[in-house]
Amino acid sequence: MLFNASPDIRQQIAATPELQPHENGPLRATPIRAVILTNADVDHIAGLLALREREPFALYATARVLEVLEANSIFNVLDRAIVHRRELKIGTQTDVLDATGKSTGIVVETFTVPGKVALFLEDQAKAAEGFGTQEGDTIGLRISSKGNEHSVFYIPGCARIDAMLKSRLERADCLLFDGTLYTDDEMITAGVGSKTGARMGHVSISGEEGSLAALATLGIGDRIYVHINNTNPVLDDSSVEHAAVVGAGWKIAFDGMEIRL
Amino acid sequence: MLFNASPDIRQQIAATPELQPHENGPLRATPIRAVILTNADVDHIAGLLALREREPFALYATARVLEVLEANSIFNVLDRAIVHRRELKIGTQTDVLDATGKSTGIVVETFTVPGKVALFLEDQAKAAEGFGTQEGDTIGLRISSKGNEHSVFYIPGCARIDAMLKSRLERADCLLFDGTLYTDDEMITAGVGSKTGARMGHVSISGEEGSLAALATLGIGDRIYVHINNTNPVLDDSSVEHAAVVGAGWKIAFDGMEIRL
Repeated sequence: MLFNASPDIRQQIAATPELQPHENGPLRATPIRAVILTNADVDHIAGLLALREREPFALYATARVLEVLEANSIFNVLDRAIVHRRELKIGTQTDVLDATGKSTGIVVETFTVPGKVALFLEDQAKAAEGFGTQEGDTIGLRISSKGNEHSVFYIPGCARIDAMLKSRLERADCLLFDGTLYTDDEMITAGVGSKTGARMGHVSISGEEGSLAALATLGIGDRIYVHINNTNPVLDDSSVEHAAVVGAGWKIAFDGMEIRL
Repeated sequence: MLFNASPDIRQQIAATPELQPHENGPLRATPIRAVILTNADVDHIAGLLALREREPFALYATARVLEVLEANSIFNVLDRAIVHRRELKIGTQTDVLDATGKSTGIVVETFTVPGKVALFLEDQAKAAEGFGTQEGDTIGLRISSKGNEHSVFYIPGCARIDAMLKSRLERADCLLFDGTLYTDDEMITAGVGSKTGARMGHVSISGEEGSLAALATLGIGDRIYVHINNTNPVLDDSSVEHAAVVGAGWKIAFDGMEIRL
């Protein structure tokens, strides 16, 4: 299961034996049968452009995110005759079907999380006032497989951990959570950007309001940080931040990671 | 000099010692000071999305191609405060300036070549009638460096080699030319697509009207095929097609290739 249509999706596939096409399958094919987008930011949608070689799959997203794809003609490289765009309603369960309408056996439940509109869609005038979230800008997913009572929550972008989200995650089997930054001003300190995590719609790992503290007491099984920025010190095995996160029971996602529920 | 903002542009940079940022330079920087687009097809423009990390550069393209970028909001990931979009007039010489307005020392001359609009911009109704070329859909470049009398022609997409193009290329020092396909129906034969080269706006290497024959007697110095599709047998050193091309005096471009004029 690949959770993010990131630009290096093909490399990830190439490195994963289970994801190789069948020997007698079509050339230029991958085993990807459906893609689910959780927001319209460029790191979530640009990878679609790498799946353009007449690859049939179903593309699921909220109405807000589908509008962004509609408004950008470059996504017409995904031939609509074989890539079916389907709306994900928020707060519902969806039986994920492939391009031919056959069930993939995967069921997703969608819910809004605190977030923000994609940076490239921001209106400069609104930037001064701050950005609210419109429903569907950023969602989280609860993913389960038919015939398996366990499920995994996938929340790669989250601006704030509120009471509603905490209640939803209580006693979850597995959580893949936004690990973009360790500290809010990390990119500024590293000299690679002018934006804080808050400005980008990402809650930090550390701090009183950070995810490490906020998600500590919910009885969650596997906790795994994903969507990790390359300034984040948890990526360095020898850092104190890595030790703090691992010591608190979290794992750091890596390419080719396997999760069994 | 990188001629194509292809998706693997960062890997190419990483593999090229001369293209490493200065030790004391900013993080996340590349030495790219200007990008010139020769058309708006996805293989020419998608790589821009990999240059979004606050990388200052100048972006040159024809009015037709700039319109495509304007119409696709995803390219707003290139911050206009540091990425300056500049129109290339066809049939003129342009002193290529970096984002700060400083000359890069590179001069480009632009000319229309037979081509077509980007596939993803095709109107389905027009598809049945065939596609004409509007001025600026596909251009070629003559690139020179101030203080050097030699120049290189860069023509990665070309639908037909006509008398005007032949006359322009006569006795050129160096030519990088569209090597997409060896034979027009190659992708169909290989089972990876339904389009011919003609349908995609690419003249084939072989055949009576092919580039190998058409460009044989023009007295061109270095002749190098670029923009080579992965179905093209010239990529296989042991193929008869490779032998035919090399025997006729052409080279096959590779990542990290250096050309000295």
